[in-house]
Amino acid sequence: MTSTEKATERLQVLARQVTAGNATTRLAVCPKEMKDFLVHDNKELREAIYEFLKDDLYRPNHYQGLMEFREQTLQRLKKFVAQKFFSVRDYTNEPRRFMAALESLMYADYSLAIKAGVHFTLCGGTIAKLGTAYHHNKYLPGMDDLTLPGCFGMTELGHGSNVMGIETTAVYDKASGQFIINTPNDEASKYWIGGSGQHGKICAVFAQLTVNGQWQGPHVFVVRIRDDQGRLMPGVRIADQGPKMGLNGVDNGRIWFDNVRVPREDMLDAFASVSPDGTYSSSIPSVSQRFGTVVGGLTTGRVLIATGGVDGVKLALTVAIRYSCSRTQFGDRPIMDYVTHQARLLPPLAQTYALHLALGHLKTLTAARRPADAKAIHVLSSGLKAAATWGRVEAMQDCRECCGGMGFLSSNKIGPMMTDMNVDVTFEGDNTVMMQQVTRALLEDKAALSRGAPAVPSAGALAAGGTSCSKTLQSLLAYREGALLAQVAGEMAAAATRADGPAAKAAASAAAFDRQLDVVVSIGWAWVERFCHANFLQEVNRAPESLRTALDLLAQLYALSRIQRSLDFYLTVGALNRADVVALRNATMDIYAQLTAGGSRCAAVALCDAFGIPDHLLQAPIAFDWRKV
Amino acid sequence: MTSTEKATERLQVLARQVTAGNATTRLAVCPKEMKDFLVHDNKELREAIYEFLKDDLYRPNHYQGLMEFREQTLQRLKKFVAQKFFSVRDYTNEPRRFMAALESLMYADYSLAIKAGVHFTLCGGTIAKLGTAYHHNKYLPGMDDLTLPGCFGMTELGHGSNVMGIETTAVYDKASGQFIINTPNDEASKYWIGGSGQHGKICAVFAQLTVNGQWQGPHVFVVRIRDDQGRLMPGVRIADQGPKMGLNGVDNGRIWFDNVRVPREDMLDAFASVSPDGTYSSSIPSVSQRFGTVVGGLTTGRVLIATGGVDGVKLALTVAIRYSCSRTQFGDRPIMDYVTHQARLLPPLAQTYALHLALGHLKTLTAARRPADAKAIHVLSSGLKAAATWGRVEAMQDCRECCGGMGFLSSNKIGPMMTDMNVDVTFEGDNTVMMQQVTRALLEDKAALSRGAPAVPSAGALAAGGTSCSKTLQSLLAYREGALLAQVAGEMAAAATRADGPAAKAAASAAAFDRQLDVVVSIGWAWVERFCHANFLQEVNRAPESLRTALDLLAQLYALSRIQRSLDFYLTVGALNRADVVALRNATMDIYAQLTAGGSRCAAVALCDAFGIPDHLLQAPIAFDWRKV
Repeated sequence: MTSTEKATERLQVLARQVTAGNATTRLAVCPKEMKDFLVHDNKELREAIYEFLKDDLYRPNHYQGLMEFREQTLQRLKKFVAQKFFSVRDYTNEPRRFMAALESLMYADYSLAIKAGVHFTLCGGTIAKLGTAYHHNKYLPGMDDLTLPGCFGMTELGHGSNVMGIETTAVYDKASGQFIINTPNDEASKYWIGGSGQHGKICAVFAQLTVNGQWQGPHVFVVRIRDDQGRLMPGVRIADQGPKMGLNGVDNGRIWFDNVRVPREDMLDAFASVSPDGTYSSSIPSVSQRFGTVVGGLTTGRVLIATGGVDGVKLALTVAIRYSCSRTQFGDRPIMDYVTHQARLLPPLAQTYALHLALGHLKTLTAARRPADAKAIHVLSSGLKAAATWGRVEAMQDCRECCGGMGFLSSNKIGPMMTDMNVDVTFEGDNTVMMQQVTRALLEDKAALSRGAPAVPSAGALAAGGTSCSKTLQSLLAYREGALLAQVAGEMAAAATRADGPAAKAAASAAAFDRQLDVVVSIGWAWVERFCHANFLQEVNRAPESLRTALDLLAQLYALSRIQRSLDFYLTVGALNRADVVALRNATMDIYAQLTAGGSRCAAVALCDAFGIPDHLLQAPIAFDWRKV
Repeated sequence: MTSTEKATERLQVLARQVTAGNATTRLAVCPKEMKDFLVHDNKELREAIYEFLKDDLYRPNHYQGLMEFREQTLQRLKKFVAQKFFSVRDYTNEPRRFMAALESLMYADYSLAIKAGVHFTLCGGTIAKLGTAYHHNKYLPGMDDLTLPGCFGMTELGHGSNVMGIETTAVYDKASGQFIINTPNDEASKYWIGGSGQHGKICAVFAQLTVNGQWQGPHVFVVRIRDDQGRLMPGVRIADQGPKMGLNGVDNGRIWFDNVRVPREDMLDAFASVSPDGTYSSSIPSVSQRFGTVVGGLTTGRVLIATGGVDGVKLALTVAIRYSCSRTQFGDRPIMDYVTHQARLLPPLAQTYALHLALGHLKTLTAARRPADAKAIHVLSSGLKAAATWGRVEAMQDCRECCGGMGFLSSNKIGPMMTDMNVDVTFEGDNTVMMQQVTRALLEDKAALSRGAPAVPSAGALAAGGTSCSKTLQSLLAYREGALLAQVAGEMAAAATRADGPAAKAAASAAAFDRQLDVVVSIGWAWVERFCHANFLQEVNRAPESLRTALDLLAQLYALSRIQRSLDFYLTVGALNRADVVALRNATMDIYAQLTAGGSRCAAVALCDAFGIPDHLLQAPIAFDWRKV
């Protein structure tokens, strides 16, 4: 037997193992019980908002032009606000209620959710968090009843990811007791400002503050941009940014300030203030630390974008899995029977559970606001935002494709929703930058790094039964994170060693980081995967007994599918071998079979039903009876 | 030294090699010369159409509602048609001219391109190809001047991929000399019929023919669906399918036929005919072979969809690469400097060249129409369509993300274009089915399969300099195709062996195929990659000497990036090892450096300029000067 023949034989044996023994045990899942487990908070509020969204005003209209859609979105927001489901004060007082209310808009329309999010979270939350009683009394009532629609003026044309680099200036004028806000050049114009194109009346403007000739770094000012009648204020120029690929219910604008005067009191002063005589004071002396504190308090928006990403996938999966389990082609066989469909829809289902549970943990931390959790919140919100939205892009595209042409039809919701949501990978922090933030934070843990790279796990563990051992799976995920981190840290240290002097060492280290930016992003992913799996395992323990089998299976599928994506890494370092690859595939196929046994009453459908999307928000005809579209 | 320490050290050494020695030689590329090389045919026609598209009617308007957009698309098509750049008769007479004309609409608007494509290619081409002089004289003049807007009635609600399974019936009524067309149930309604929602007047309808009680399989009938005034014909019912996630300039409809009578002469009779007295005759006796011949003649649509996919990426890459080379952030460094940007934009650039050249080859075969090429055309059009459109989804999303928020703005074109084009992965044949067709065709080559699996290449070849050896790269790509094919074939044979009797053996073999459907799709990819690389190498040989360095580099990057995507396969079978992985990464990084050296005058920009998209069709402000948006 030649080596070729041997290799062939081996491949064939392996392939046989792969496809043998699909014992299709049907997994029983009670959607109601699972739903109760998944909804962490504010169940009544969520149900009440869903019920309210039965109003005809919230039915999609994909025929209208852009300006009509914007007007409709404004009317939708007004009617929603009038119900007083929550207050902008909940941003700090009852954060979980605040987040639950905004999250509940997701299934109705992403433009509405984002217009509400910009107003309440980005603008309102900034005033609630960075302002004090004066600002709360002056602005929050008008935000609660939408008489003062708010915008968030951080990003500039020339400065997106580099927020510290913004160029808008605020100079304190002692004589008048006012700040004078200016846009020094076109690149410093506020760009992408949601809600500013047509409706916004106030804007939380980030500007570089100078007091008495002394630069103090970026601070936030509440600037009136339109009067009560909607006319632009003196010195404020706004250009409507016009059509976008989606999210056209939101009126984005570009703003220039020309000597706009803002009362001294309208600088948000929780962390820094300027006295009438022009004395600057802050409890945080360093400009960069101060700015870090200011921005660090504003993670709620990022949490909500991540949550929205996961919710978008929930809807798409519910539509695609229900359809695939009932749609037949070439006879009576549902298309969900095909492994190509299973491999596209079921790993995202597991990932959705994993991310949903991880976001639950993050929301708990965000709401508790313990200073000790600040770094964890920073890492979690950055990593989960990137993973949830990148995961969404891929999962929704797969869902759309798995529905064939039906996925392209607006009435089936997946298509327009994924278009609207496409923005989420680059707003609230570009995902590549988000993943870098995760890695940068991990690189700060010198103690952990000093222990060096973790030991390479011995190959063969998956083949020896490890595919169903959560400890083995967790250790593989943890190994990848540790090994890649040690690699980048080692590179940076080595580069620094070769350079002379602190500045050169820092530069060499930074250059080494940049040269490995693709690995840096992989570390972000690896961190998220390890964390989500570990958190998933903890969640299984707190779940009712009756749900544990299903949740365990999803946690297992999540880990297996993430490991599968990084097989090249594991094989390269020798942590897995060929037998492991086969075992991994077998185990995955076995889980697919368990999740899909039972046709339209299979576990996969029940696990989607557990997301609890009401019929009137799910809407898609193919999620009910495709023969009657 | 423990094994862990050794592994760590090894990783660090490898990583150092990775990032060392970027000798950033700037690669010189003359865009004009490269453009001449890339445009295979009809240069003057293309330029003339581009020039014509300067007309204001073809400027995007993203403000309008759906019905206005449809009307605008119709007006755009009318004006285009009035120029008489080509005739529907070119479908058979001058296929390259036909394809070039339709392809040239791509950069203006995908709805326009598809509305034109449905009319000219799907309907007109079907009549030209499957009809005879009677049909040509009766219909083609009206198609050329758009007095007879045409539709293509193949897909039914219940039968998309399974075309043989359509249920619409055509029964010959000898007494009247007419066919009677019926829709027996809702699932048999013609679904997704482009152009039928509002404007279509004739439709090439696929229906199961019965003559004298004898079923003859699917045949095509030209059915008048609306009269000259646009009123529905008796017995024809059409439901407008309404909004889609994109492509809303095209009016898709759903059609039911209720005893619609069609003159005997209006059955397209190139391959089969019915005499007045009801005698059915065809040169092809078997129903399935006959249908195969009918459908096999209609590959032009698929070729054009694949071409459109590649063209979409050309535009997106031109915008994203130009922007990334000029856009700075965190100082003066252009974002294209980051390896994360390079890794997202440059492999698609190489892939675009590879696919463009492969499609050139396919177009040559399609135009030559040699019977001996039928199978090659089938495999190429299926595989390239799937690879081009799946590649497009990913590449355009990467382009959009690499432009940050700018990629989401409609004026920068990438966003709306990718939304419109999202349909291409499932229309003209679902991509998963397309890749299966490739594999099924390869599995028919029993002689090749009988030679068994190819020998596993010895690991270490890339590390030993193979990264720049086209033969090594080609043999790795060929090995993957051969090994996976042998695996599936072996599985099918083994399953058949275990079954008793021909029917059981066939069923067991088919079941084995289905169980490995994910591998089957991978074979389609592997075939495309091997073919595109081999074809690329041939093209380099016919290229002017001055272009060969750049083309060689792109061919190399194409192969390396495709091998990189399948690293898990190569590592599992032992065809590559750890040193190869490092060498592959080094080589890729080195190519990135060569392509990006020189900032906004780098080779990558020149290679995009060579796509020859005129400024007035490129349009995107960020492709010119992002500071002046």
